[in-house]
Amino acid sequence: MTAIDKLYEKIKTHGHVCVGLDTCIDYVPKSERSKGNDAEAVLSFNKALIDATIEVAACFKVQIAYYEEKGIEGLKAYSETLKYIRQKGGIAIADIKRGDIADTAIRYANGHFSGDFEADLVTLNPYMGIDAITPWLTKAKLNGKGAFVLMRTSNPGMRDFEYLETTNGKKVYHIVGDKLSALANETKGNCGYGMFGAVVGCTEREEAAEIRAAYPDLFFLIPGYGAQGGAAEDAALLLRDGNGGVVNASRSIITAWQKEPNNADANNNFAAECALRATVKMRDEIRAVL
Amino acid sequence: MTAIDKLYEKIKTHGHVCVGLDTCIDYVPKSERSKGNDAEAVLSFNKALIDATIEVAACFKVQIAYYEEKGIEGLKAYSETLKYIRQKGGIAIADIKRGDIADTAIRYANGHFSGDFEADLVTLNPYMGIDAITPWLTKAKLNGKGAFVLMRTSNPGMRDFEYLETTNGKKVYHIVGDKLSALANETKGNCGYGMFGAVVGCTEREEAAEIRAAYPDLFFLIPGYGAQGGAAEDAALLLRDGNGGVVNASRSIITAWQKEPNNADANNNFAAECALRATVKMRDEIRAVL
Repeated sequence: MTAIDKLYEKIKTHGHVCVGLDTCIDYVPKSERSKGNDAEAVLSFNKALIDATIEVAACFKVQIAYYEEKGIEGLKAYSETLKYIRQKGGIAIADIKRGDIADTAIRYANGHFSGDFEADLVTLNPYMGIDAITPWLTKAKLNGKGAFVLMRTSNPGMRDFEYLETTNGKKVYHIVGDKLSALANETKGNCGYGMFGAVVGCTEREEAAEIRAAYPDLFFLIPGYGAQGGAAEDAALLLRDGNGGVVNASRSIITAWQKEPNNADANNNFAAECALRATVKMRDEIRAVL
Repeated sequence: MTAIDKLYEKIKTHGHVCVGLDTCIDYVPKSERSKGNDAEAVLSFNKALIDATIEVAACFKVQIAYYEEKGIEGLKAYSETLKYIRQKGGIAIADIKRGDIADTAIRYANGHFSGDFEADLVTLNPYMGIDAITPWLTKAKLNGKGAFVLMRTSNPGMRDFEYLETTNGKKVYHIVGDKLSALANETKGNCGYGMFGAVVGCTEREEAAEIRAAYPDLFFLIPGYGAQGGAAEDAALLLRDGNGGVVNASRSIITAWQKEPNNADANNNFAAECALRATVKMRDEIRAVL
């Protein structure tokens, strides 16, 4: 089974939500911050949220930047967060957006498909070309790992380069999609999707149906839900037969406790309960429009 | 002074060579490998090479992938390598090719412009758009840091996306260059170059002079020298009045000792002497064609 196969199966029972653990110390309840250093407090918070949501989330995405910011201590918390997700039977996506070539790509792949930072799937950046992707695929085939390559993101700046119209009548992101589709075709798992999918944001409804139709073999990691403007209907346009994609939400889940009245005395248990409610709500919103 | 100003001044006295510390354990002489764990052996090797080359190199580029591969221990060696370069008065470029947006970009910038992983300059990936670059610039302005953004790289895959012709008559990498040039114009240091430059490989001679002429205010980090096919003449086309760029070489310098006869008993001192000779040779080759 490939990592994408596992994700496909998980969606059937757990829904489409990818819980984004972009955790900084400000998101941890004050009462929990004094129990160790910041990185330890972030790790305890993550564990509480993982425990609470693991039966209602398809997977977890850990944004490494929030941990890299804090240096070695932060990356220890990152490592332990990934380990905890996987120990509990969850699927861990390392949101690392790495993109480099040849021997360097192999080093990165070793670093994120095994060892301290082992994840089930990673995110990758295609700018340098497909030779920044294929070394990861070689490694992924050995141990059933997977990746999502940036295609059309959900930020305003996506129009700077991703949306450039090329002389062959396609936008840059379509050409990225075409190359990824070729890789997916060669690496289809049991579920019919390739081992490497794409990051496609749900903020632009117009092109969503067109993208889904053009790349039936690409599994999507879908950012942009909630705060960035995407709704359940937008995300659903990027799914196929009710599967084929996971929808990420980070802050709306992990800081849900901060929106509750009387949160001054909140602890991790309370934050975890709020995260659970937010995840279930989102899961059901997406299921309702399928 | 900006980091680019410092680099500009250093070139005048030290030449154009950027020593690439893409160090894996296989590059460390066997006699030195038993003195600690792999990460410690890599660090000792790096220190020997830094000591040997610091007076003949413009700067050092540390490719984080080689350290990230080894997890927490590897990143400790990465951190110590950066610290050592900077303690010795050298300029450290963190080759991290990060590219993410908004709050995530700020986290990365905090992580690589301060703390355990503090460098003088970083490399960045523009795929997601200029909003993946500007948060770094905001941070860089506060403490005189800098960056090189991937524009036209030196790998075969660069033709996949960087070279796509757009409907406004420019290639994708030119449009990246145009946006970077606008940022450079707003952030010019004493030397006349902007705080953020570009990565432009020296493997394609045809377009080199054209790129240099089109972007006079962009300082270049130039990969592709030596093993990848670029020669001193190619690199020189990307310089302006004998400055405006540093030329990276990694393996040809750090594994120079392996090409010597009778290297079986080599130690770090020998590797460092060979690295010094290779650096001086390259420095003089470039100076000779200016």
